[in-house]
Amino acid sequence: MTQWLERQAAVRERRGQVRRPLPRTAHERFIDLASNDYLGLATDPRVAGAAAEAASRWGAGATSSRLVAGTTQLHLDLEQELATLAGMEAALVFSSGYLANIGVITALGGPGTLIIADEHCHASMIDGFRLSRSRTESFAHNSVGEAGRLLADRREPRAVIAVESVYSVLGDAAPLADLLAVAEQRDAVLLIDEAHSLGVTGSGSFAGRGAVAGTALAGHLNVIVTATLSKALGSQGGAVLGSALLREHLLNRARSFIFDTGLAPASAAAALAAARIIRGEPWRAHSVHSNAAALAAGLAPALAGRGAVGQNGTAPDRTAGAVQSIPMPSAETVLAAAESARRAGVRVGCFRPPSVPDGIPRLRLTARATLTPEEIEASCAVLRGILEELP
Amino acid sequence: MTQWLERQAAVRERRGQVRRPLPRTAHERFIDLASNDYLGLATDPRVAGAAAEAASRWGAGATSSRLVAGTTQLHLDLEQELATLAGMEAALVFSSGYLANIGVITALGGPGTLIIADEHCHASMIDGFRLSRSRTESFAHNSVGEAGRLLADRREPRAVIAVESVYSVLGDAAPLADLLAVAEQRDAVLLIDEAHSLGVTGSGSFAGRGAVAGTALAGHLNVIVTATLSKALGSQGGAVLGSALLREHLLNRARSFIFDTGLAPASAAAALAAARIIRGEPWRAHSVHSNAAALAAGLAPALAGRGAVGQNGTAPDRTAGAVQSIPMPSAETVLAAAESARRAGVRVGCFRPPSVPDGIPRLRLTARATLTPEEIEASCAVLRGILEELP
Ligand SMILES: Cc1ncc(COP(=O)(O)O)c(C=O)c1O
Ligand SMILES: Cc1ncc(COP(=O)(O)O)c(C=O)c1O
Repeated sequence: MTQWLERQAAVRERRGQVRRPLPRTAHERFIDLASNDYLGLATDPRVAGAAAEAASRWGAGATSSRLVAGTTQLHLDLEQELATLAGMEAALVFSSGYLANIGVITALGGPGTLIIADEHCHASMIDGFRLSRSRTESFAHNSVGEAGRLLADRREPRAVIAVESVYSVLGDAAPLADLLAVAEQRDAVLLIDEAHSLGVTGSGSFAGRGAVAGTALAGHLNVIVTATLSKALGSQGGAVLGSALLREHLLNRARSFIFDTGLAPASAAAALAAARIIRGEPWRAHSVHSNAAALAAGLAPALAGRGAVGQNGTAPDRTAGAVQSIPMPSAETVLAAAESARRAGVRVGCFRPPSVPDGIPRLRLTARATLTPEEIEASCAVLRGILEELP
Repeated sequence: MTQWLERQAAVRERRGQVRRPLPRTAHERFIDLASNDYLGLATDPRVAGAAAEAASRWGAGATSSRLVAGTTQLHLDLEQELATLAGMEAALVFSSGYLANIGVITALGGPGTLIIADEHCHASMIDGFRLSRSRTESFAHNSVGEAGRLLADRREPRAVIAVESVYSVLGDAAPLADLLAVAEQRDAVLLIDEAHSLGVTGSGSFAGRGAVAGTALAGHLNVIVTATLSKALGSQGGAVLGSALLREHLLNRARSFIFDTGLAPASAAAALAAARIIRGEPWRAHSVHSNAAALAAGLAPALAGRGAVGQNGTAPDRTAGAVQSIPMPSAETVLAAAESARRAGVRVGCFRPPSVPDGIPRLRLTARATLTPEEIEASCAVLRGILEELP
């Protein structure tokens, strides 16, 4: 095995594919366009304070599976609050979004279930498909027509259409209403990963409550939502939202729930505080969208003619979310660009294969709610300089 | 899907298999023989305090993947400390033990790797085997001979023997030295899940440092360790320990590391504080073993002739760990016994299929370090009463 590891390392080195995470410092002065702390809640004193208080009150860990002694009142309160926030009947909290996806997909999958998945679905969903032993077919990104055709041919009694509401790397939105129509017509469940929309998407009094709440999808029997507590909610953990019947099924059948230690009380409390803040402070979601527009406008001069913020060479879809993605010519250029930005005080996401769904390297920028106009202006200046130098 | 969920729920109801987690309260007066907080560190003020401080200092969440902006100095310090504690060169921290197992197994697996697994391996390892697309063969529980025979026939260039140092439900230990001999002879890697031994196993100056530290296995190139931070360390999270080369490989290849948000700073800080306490306070590990002996002695009168504390009808292996398991006649009796114990103020683990590796329902008791002699005596009295009533 050691020799094989050495050969793999040499290949990575030769191809310039070695990843080296740079630790950040506690109060660093980078402008953060990289993290998924979309609403600035991870360091909000109410959220961090709730985490601190819960650690003192409940202890640092849940101490066992949720089914043994790992369920506290905090976990149940959080589940109630998440269900309300996202507009679903019930929720079950997992220790990560990754394990929530694996849990729901394996508990609904199997030989009797066909899975139809958007080709851009996240790794955690893909792992769920593989584990579920369901027949799984993927459809071209956002192609409702192809999804419908795949479902029309099915022989399995049950079917799941798996998508993300806002895709994690490209930042574009799924056509949820059309997908639901197909799901209803074909008696399938629409599984929506709201990792990048919860806290960010939604309009009017539903601002920040995600892509489902306040729409015809909310509480719909054909809709299941997964969420992560580690992005807009600023904490850690994940959840599956759906009917009370679904919750009860998962609690009894999802291996990644049953055989995993419950979410740490501090993380549960932080997510609970964050969910309440999201409901009470819709300005945060609005701010993500105005910051996304400002970022897009500030970068437009450097991007004219070079592909897409928002996938289509124009300003990003204003309702999609915080993520903006800039296609780059190569793995080397994206790495160099991210490093130049970092040296100039701006932290951006650097995405290379295999972490990009379509193989195209990308800078990934997050238009976080708490960026100031000065920070946006300064980072646009830095990024314009870098992008204009590109071959 | 709804009708299928309803049918499944009806089947569970009919078979008496419905699980309903009872939330615990913050300062409950139950005697805790159920949780995996083996050393009483989850609520230790130094551990809970470190969690609280880290939440305030770093924020409630890591805010992104470890590879983007989710690595803090805390994560790196924790990795260093875990490697020292467990006697390995390097460590990589994951957001759970579940995802650590999936990560290392998928990153080493594939068509070129044969996996030989003890039939009692944990669900998270099994999910890793399935995801890895390796040919996987299981061997009879603790049968070194069978493991050797399976390896002798292999055609794959690489091989992994997967075991737990102390098995989670039965509480018995694996013959690690013999397994390592087979691994060396057959050029295989021995993957040891130390979930239930880290903090508990080890003797002399290595008390509490696990089943590997201080033995010939420590730092051995054929040995890889996985750990969870959610049991003896009282927190949440997981880790893979091995060579620096392995760490680098996982950081670049383990999907459940790359595509997952980093461990929450509060959980990382708590685990770091706990690991230091374990090294500094060997009495905790000693206390687990003396409490295990006291518990076994206290229950012996009621167990004479009815199968096994410690799998063999005698006192449990004193070096194995904190877990003691009492086979029960049926799912109904184990449920009723656990419920009677709870009403009498004692919380015990109630394990039924599918959560038992051999299909036998069990009471699972954890001889936690901070149980007082009075608590042990009182719980033995309660449990004796229940066991003596059994059919
Ligand atoms: C779309 C999507 N789903 C799920 C996850 C996993 O969530 P978590 O990080 O909470 O495990 C992520 C990212 O981490 C994601 O981007
Ligand atoms: C043997 C074993 N490995 C791994 C795990 C998973 O660890 P975690 O709960 O940290 O995800 C557990 C229990 O939860 C376990 O018992």
